[in-house]
Amino acid sequence: MTQTIAFVGLGAMGSAMAETLVKKQMRVVGFDMRKEAVAQLEAAGGNGAASAAEAAKAADILALMVVNADQAEAVLFAGGALEALKPGATVILMSTCAPGRVEAIAARVEKSGRHIVDAPVSGGVTGAKGGTLTIMASGTKEVFEGVKPMLSAMSSNLFYLGDKPGQGAAMKTVNQLMCGVHIAVAAEALAFAEQAGIDPKLALEILSGSAAQSWMLKARGPRMVADDGIVTSAVDIFVKDLGIVLDAGRSMKMGLPLAASAHQLFLSASGGGHGGKDDSQVVETYRALRKK
Amino acid sequence: MTQTIAFVGLGAMGSAMAETLVKKQMRVVGFDMRKEAVAQLEAAGGNGAASAAEAAKAADILALMVVNADQAEAVLFAGGALEALKPGATVILMSTCAPGRVEAIAARVEKSGRHIVDAPVSGGVTGAKGGTLTIMASGTKEVFEGVKPMLSAMSSNLFYLGDKPGQGAAMKTVNQLMCGVHIAVAAEALAFAEQAGIDPKLALEILSGSAAQSWMLKARGPRMVADDGIVTSAVDIFVKDLGIVLDAGRSMKMGLPLAASAHQLFLSASGGGHGGKDDSQVVETYRALRKK
Repeated sequence: MTQTIAFVGLGAMGSAMAETLVKKQMRVVGFDMRKEAVAQLEAAGGNGAASAAEAAKAADILALMVVNADQAEAVLFAGGALEALKPGATVILMSTCAPGRVEAIAARVEKSGRHIVDAPVSGGVTGAKGGTLTIMASGTKEVFEGVKPMLSAMSSNLFYLGDKPGQGAAMKTVNQLMCGVHIAVAAEALAFAEQAGIDPKLALEILSGSAAQSWMLKARGPRMVADDGIVTSAVDIFVKDLGIVLDAGRSMKMGLPLAASAHQLFLSASGGGHGGKDDSQVVETYRALRKK
Repeated sequence: MTQTIAFVGLGAMGSAMAETLVKKQMRVVGFDMRKEAVAQLEAAGGNGAASAAEAAKAADILALMVVNADQAEAVLFAGGALEALKPGATVILMSTCAPGRVEAIAARVEKSGRHIVDAPVSGGVTGAKGGTLTIMASGTKEVFEGVKPMLSAMSSNLFYLGDKPGQGAAMKTVNQLMCGVHIAVAAEALAFAEQAGIDPKLALEILSGSAAQSWMLKARGPRMVADDGIVTSAVDIFVKDLGIVLDAGRSMKMGLPLAASAHQLFLSASGGGHGGKDDSQVVETYRALRKK
């Protein structure tokens, strides 16, 4: 029997993920605050709903790809989506949230007689469009198995972290720690090269082929050398995500000096007016700081 | 006519590079303070010398792969290797040195009627053995062309940075900035995962396949999770190299916050008694700092 998936949060990531599910012949009912995002999903062959609760009503799975834990709670609780969901159905929380927030949401969902899988993703819009995301899931094994076909449809790397919701979120914070620092250090290195009088394009070519290479250097480096204005993910997303990393570190009483420095750099870029630009533009912080 | 290459400094990197040259049918005369290193080169088909000056005497090229600029100066000047070298021959400085030090050495070499190419490398012992190093060279174009066959024999990525000695060294500091921070952030992330109760092996597998991946994570991550005692490059090498990066930043009046944090972490690992261990063991700094 085909599962019906309510998909709430059709931003850059969410719309690409929902459309990938549609392409793979899954029945998707989507909702977003922006009507044009719902219309776009309908044009791609999905179904639209007028509210999150309406989308949830007939669904076996309610996937949430909203901005943060606050929005997830607003949709589930105040917005009535959890109550609209039939008992025994499963909520999949895919946004990047602090592990503690996921645990709290999970407790309320389970108390209501619905199930929950914590399943944040990595891989950006490219991974979402291609169905090649990395997914870091946790939750009761049985519930996880029930949503595995849907998760597999979006992912080339599906990992099961354990039976407690929050473990997926913890792994995602570890992932974001590395991604954020990798973007910031690419900016530090390329700004340093520029200051040293090295052609930044040549520096990027050399670094991309040496032991200095990273996935983020290849993805974001070209846009640090010459900004094409494309935004794959904004500076403010890393202000948020590294904030979550540091909150998690604080709750574990663990110092994370590199993540803390990188957070300051994204924060300064946002303060400098670049918050909505591509996260590669953290390089503007270095340009602002250096000798003129 | 075959060039004769004097190769001084037969440590882990230097011996692998010299043996690669021998394998590619080049005439190599090697010297190192450790007699067993010279004997090993002879066993591999190269020639040995009793001093750097003796090695330099009949050479067209004098390659230096010593530890730092101090050693390079000692070999060239006090050690008499420069004077032993025939006029018109070329010194290739391959060690990681501060750009300013390279400029000073270059001026003295050129004043003596010999040529110089500044050509630091990246790629570690694996790259040295396989002849797949990344080489970042600078110096007069004509002189560079003269040593290109020898550099190409050791490298799969040979880059020409410009006509001034020191430009190669500057690029190498940019490269080391990224490599050092990448190792340190891999340690920060894996120690964070461990503290969060995530199986570090699983965390490493996930990070290695996601947007968090880097060359260094793959090379050093496994040894952070379970140290096999192998030393590809020591903690103290990054204490030195990130020190050079920060000195270069200081001379340009450029703040490098991530490099500075990473330097502190390697420094602390060295202070904790891990200086001679593999650079992956910077993870010990995090283990020492975290909640017990």
